[in-house]
Amino acid sequence: MDIEKLIAEITDEILSKVSSEKNSRSEQAGEMDIAGYLDDTLLKADAVPEQVTAICKEAKEYKTASVCVNSWYVPLVAKELEGSGVKTCCVIGFPLGACSANAKSAETFEAVQKGAEEVDMVVNIGAVKAGDWQYVKQDIEGVVAAAGKALVKVIIETCLLTDEEKVKVCTVAKLAGADFVKTSTGFSTGGATVEDIRLMRRTVGSDMGVKASGGIRDYQTAKAMIDAGATRIGTSSAKGILAGAPGNQ
Amino acid sequence: MDIEKLIAEITDEILSKVSSEKNSRSEQAGEMDIAGYLDDTLLKADAVPEQVTAICKEAKEYKTASVCVNSWYVPLVAKELEGSGVKTCCVIGFPLGACSANAKSAETFEAVQKGAEEVDMVVNIGAVKAGDWQYVKQDIEGVVAAAGKALVKVIIETCLLTDEEKVKVCTVAKLAGADFVKTSTGFSTGGATVEDIRLMRRTVGSDMGVKASGGIRDYQTAKAMIDAGATRIGTSSAKGILAGAPGNQ
Repeated sequence: MDIEKLIAEITDEILSKVSSEKNSRSEQAGEMDIAGYLDDTLLKADAVPEQVTAICKEAKEYKTASVCVNSWYVPLVAKELEGSGVKTCCVIGFPLGACSANAKSAETFEAVQKGAEEVDMVVNIGAVKAGDWQYVKQDIEGVVAAAGKALVKVIIETCLLTDEEKVKVCTVAKLAGADFVKTSTGFSTGGATVEDIRLMRRTVGSDMGVKASGGIRDYQTAKAMIDAGATRIGTSSAKGILAGAPGNQ
Repeated sequence: MDIEKLIAEITDEILSKVSSEKNSRSEQAGEMDIAGYLDDTLLKADAVPEQVTAICKEAKEYKTASVCVNSWYVPLVAKELEGSGVKTCCVIGFPLGACSANAKSAETFEAVQKGAEEVDMVVNIGAVKAGDWQYVKQDIEGVVAAAGKALVKVIIETCLLTDEEKVKVCTVAKLAGADFVKTSTGFSTGGATVEDIRLMRRTVGSDMGVKASGGIRDYQTAKAMIDAGATRIGTSSAKGILAGAPGNQ
């Protein structure tokens, strides 16, 4: 089937459903082990090894899902987290997503070789804006192939997209074999919103992960994202989020 | 000679000279063909092909030094600029510089294969802050080797560095065989300053290029950078700069 036609059909269906259901979602997650939802994240350009080591120590103490860093730091994080159950995660083509597809897959391949168990790639946003879905799909497929058994999250940078583009790019990410869609890099004009998480969850269904990231700094916000359908939270404020969790206050 | 010792010696020498000469530079560039100094730049994550084509047309009209884009756009820019004399330039490891060294060299190799004649790489800022000069040098050398005959500019992201770090990283860039040092990505906390250009020029001497970038939007600012020692200006406001040049007002 023609990819353009398939994407258009799915998009129409999702947008009409979401519109009719708006604000009707009443499901609420109960009390939860929120640490297991967190990707403890340090992506600043000037982060030094001591800071990376410190965040790994914190993540092991809290038992977060992963530590997420730039790809230079994968060997250090993999070493620090060895045997802890906390995953090594890195970003790919970050934060613009505008490097070549081969650059993304090469970065992915090396990162996984050196210990990355999850990779968060940035989609080619220019290609999304241009509606070049074939290229968007190939770009993601290249990373999925290079990642092997490692989990692939696709950052769609919601703040730069229309709702229609969000649905289309999530659909393409699913067709390309990615494991998660993710809202934001945290380096653009905005972060995660509950509305976007709801739209993304509705689009990808229940068999794919949805990660909320960008500007999530407290328990209430993290909880609202999970209630809206997020299964992972990217944050550089793990400590702050956990401090606000029931039982820790 | 031990690289640490060499870098320390050069840094001490440069910093003492610059300190004694501060504000004494009186050399002024006369009237000039400023277009030939400009890298006409479009690096937004959501830039679409039509915008890239438009900037290439503009660059050919003004006869700028280059068009500078993200590496995804190299084939398009190389095609648009073919035979014009305007160079195809792209950024590498941009804008954080925190991807692995192999990711940078792989991105460089492919970009040059596809038509890039100049590459602007971001230094590993975390390694600079950690004083890991051996790694900083290897990271640059990997790009220089992958670039072959293409010109390599090293973005040091001045706004995140101390004066001592600026001198050290410029020295390392020179030792690693790069062709230019460049102030800024335009995606961090600040851009080029006249003081930084003067310091960088003094450090690298006369046989290396210095590129001022980040926040340069008018003729007066561009001229001040050139008077301070810049031999290239990165800007997304080429039209505005040229409109302010003598004879065009």
